[in-house]
Amino acid sequence: MRVNDLAGYIQAERDRFVADLKEWLAIPSISGDPAHAADVRASADWLVAHLRKQGFPTVETWETGGLPAVFAEWPAEDPDAPAVVVYGHHDVQPVEPLEEWETAPFEPVERGDRLIGRGTSDDKGQIFFHTLGIRALLAASGRQAPPVTVKLLVEGEEESGSVHFADLLRTHRDRLACDAVVISDTTMWAADVPSMCTGMRGLTEAEVTLRGPSTDLHSGSFGGAVPNPLQAMAVLLAALHDADGRVTLPGFYDDVVPLTDEERELFARLPFDEDEWLRTAGDSRAAQGEKGYTTLERIWARPTAEINGMWGGHTGPGGKTIVPRDAHAKISFRLVAGQDPAKVQESFKAWVAEHVPPGVDAEVRTPGGGVRPCFSPIDSPGVAAARRAMERAFGTEVLFTREGGSGPEADLADVLDAPLIFVAVGLNGDRIHAPNEKVEIPLLLKGAEAAAHLWEELATALR
Amino acid sequence: MRVNDLAGYIQAERDRFVADLKEWLAIPSISGDPAHAADVRASADWLVAHLRKQGFPTVETWETGGLPAVFAEWPAEDPDAPAVVVYGHHDVQPVEPLEEWETAPFEPVERGDRLIGRGTSDDKGQIFFHTLGIRALLAASGRQAPPVTVKLLVEGEEESGSVHFADLLRTHRDRLACDAVVISDTTMWAADVPSMCTGMRGLTEAEVTLRGPSTDLHSGSFGGAVPNPLQAMAVLLAALHDADGRVTLPGFYDDVVPLTDEERELFARLPFDEDEWLRTAGDSRAAQGEKGYTTLERIWARPTAEINGMWGGHTGPGGKTIVPRDAHAKISFRLVAGQDPAKVQESFKAWVAEHVPPGVDAEVRTPGGGVRPCFSPIDSPGVAAARRAMERAFGTEVLFTREGGSGPEADLADVLDAPLIFVAVGLNGDRIHAPNEKVEIPLLLKGAEAAAHLWEELATALR
Repeated sequence: MRVNDLAGYIQAERDRFVADLKEWLAIPSISGDPAHAADVRASADWLVAHLRKQGFPTVETWETGGLPAVFAEWPAEDPDAPAVVVYGHHDVQPVEPLEEWETAPFEPVERGDRLIGRGTSDDKGQIFFHTLGIRALLAASGRQAPPVTVKLLVEGEEESGSVHFADLLRTHRDRLACDAVVISDTTMWAADVPSMCTGMRGLTEAEVTLRGPSTDLHSGSFGGAVPNPLQAMAVLLAALHDADGRVTLPGFYDDVVPLTDEERELFARLPFDEDEWLRTAGDSRAAQGEKGYTTLERIWARPTAEINGMWGGHTGPGGKTIVPRDAHAKISFRLVAGQDPAKVQESFKAWVAEHVPPGVDAEVRTPGGGVRPCFSPIDSPGVAAARRAMERAFGTEVLFTREGGSGPEADLADVLDAPLIFVAVGLNGDRIHAPNEKVEIPLLLKGAEAAAHLWEELATALR
Repeated sequence: MRVNDLAGYIQAERDRFVADLKEWLAIPSISGDPAHAADVRASADWLVAHLRKQGFPTVETWETGGLPAVFAEWPAEDPDAPAVVVYGHHDVQPVEPLEEWETAPFEPVERGDRLIGRGTSDDKGQIFFHTLGIRALLAASGRQAPPVTVKLLVEGEEESGSVHFADLLRTHRDRLACDAVVISDTTMWAADVPSMCTGMRGLTEAEVTLRGPSTDLHSGSFGGAVPNPLQAMAVLLAALHDADGRVTLPGFYDDVVPLTDEERELFARLPFDEDEWLRTAGDSRAAQGEKGYTTLERIWARPTAEINGMWGGHTGPGGKTIVPRDAHAKISFRLVAGQDPAKVQESFKAWVAEHVPPGVDAEVRTPGGGVRPCFSPIDSPGVAAARRAMERAFGTEVLFTREGGSGPEADLADVLDAPLIFVAVGLNGDRIHAPNEKVEIPLLLKGAEAAAHLWEELATALR
């Protein structure tokens, strides 16, 4: 296969690609709004028909307890070739506030190289480049089938919490058997700084209640002689970090997969403007966190404990001189590769029990099991192969990022027992979840090219 | 004067004393309810008429910006004799919940030795024993005037915050010139453990606001890399006490008048049941506070810092993984003899400013100027004289207490520049401010006897 042919094919297909995508984007598949349930179903139907037209031998609608997903499979010619699941979603975010849209959200329009409309970047556009990529690869190489078995899994409930997704994966675990999972639902650093995400942080949450007296007490009659639950809460939560900004739970860092020197060096090469970042961080006036790490390392690759809410005693206007009966706090932990949400929950419960003063009762509730972190090392075969594919498409070095947030992607790695590879061409400026969402069409075409190279690279790397 | 005559006179007057008091108690002088303003005025009028009948040469209604006070003066024969102001109030608390009263609150009834009704203990009954005491002293001694000049000041707004009281004192400062102020608006330890209060704690309040980012931030995207105002609040407030339960504000204890060995020894002789006290403290499970002090010392004679309320971030149901934009706390300090509310406020403001981390802005609001502490040492001439008077009346040793709460009594000491002497016969079980308020009639009569002795003792002690 000659690269020029591949790129040439993709360029030649551009207009048809955009026209087809616009047709799909026009379907308002808002999964969070029950009034749009039929539209999500119409979006799935449209995709099924489209994938069949593209030549996928197997295309199915997969029902869930809620809205449908679409599954399509294009087997490799070689039955021993690796299999890869490509994950994305065809549902979209709501569009409110509608008055802030400069164009109708479900009437996608081109403005120069930009395609504007709900779902252009998150995530229909990014699913779509895979369909173009696979056709381009076949056309340019003269093959009848891709060099790896490609299994497309396009969820319909991602924007409403993926509530049935883990069940769906477990139900179809055999059909989804694979050697790697490609996620195309994130971003790269910048249009001129292509990058790949290598992991997402996990999450676990806890709510702490400290109880003292059975009723609020007069602080004149009792203050200074009985424990104050708010004071106990302040002492407890202050002790959750040490002076170096490290979380003090025993063993909290024991399982953490450390950053490698290479990854730190590659992070450091990202053109990061901390002042600009602080502006996006609600005009925060100082970067602050775990000692010995940069801001990017802190938000991407280091675990945290964060107080999300705290309350107790008199919170209304004026003064009320009481010793309050109880104090409450909501805490969340962001976890990184190697950490187990359940283990952190248990560790936190034990720590709280050990740290409350006499006369204060502590209760720790941990709603849900949390979200597992996911991570694929930069020198793992899948990531290295995807990096080569991206570099061939973009013609420049590809750097690495991670995602500080947490998502259902970890379920994919867990249930399918396969490494994740993040290949995406969205930008942070794409205004996903916001009015005037857009995507850069040239980046979608680069994505198609990278996807085409990816199947070749993975055929070798994962064998 | 023979003691038997004094006590005999008081016993002989018992029924008339109770009948007169009941007449006054029947006037619903609830100062906190504007609908009862006329009743407060009627109460003042009734008292004016009564005091004239008792023989006070000067009796006046003193108007304020709100409800009237009553002033009465009985000059000593000797123009060089000391002058004493007696403070009390003729207004009462509201009576809700009415359905919990076993008798009508303003239809006072006798049940054996008890007199039941609103105001019996707080404070009409306690003012009233002074009128009987002065008459008994004159009758038993054959004098035409008391041995000190007695100036009765009976406020009408105590139960609604004494809002005009300091102004009233300043307006009439010359008329109120005195060598001591007797407060008859508190309690003694128990019917069989007569005691005198020697001081009340002061109070100052502050509200702290810590501000970080301009908006709540996604804890995945920003958590661990920017300051969290709730975290900063926990660290700040945890640092307000050291491991020994001492307040860490620089110089906080510098001005504190320390407890004397004698006062500690006398406190220790009060029959104090800590388990029982913990039950009244909302079933608190542990006494806890400044190291090196007993529970009574902590609540009466040591200053405190108490967190009364704290809030910030997500406080509703479910989780919300944010770095919150701000955090809030309400703090109050109870102060003891020697401490200045304004100085503590300034010290706290400076301390907060020094202790917030970079990137967090702190604002400290200090509503009002606070309440000054008041204190008269047990070996001061006035207190020692009053103790002798109480001991003569009760025929047993009189111990000492203090009051952990704060009140306008400090204004009396400040504006009139005179020491306070607390002579009162209420009990903690009198249910003041609650349904079924009562007073023990024998204690009111003992109060009258103590008051009679008091004028003789003070005539010598204060000269």
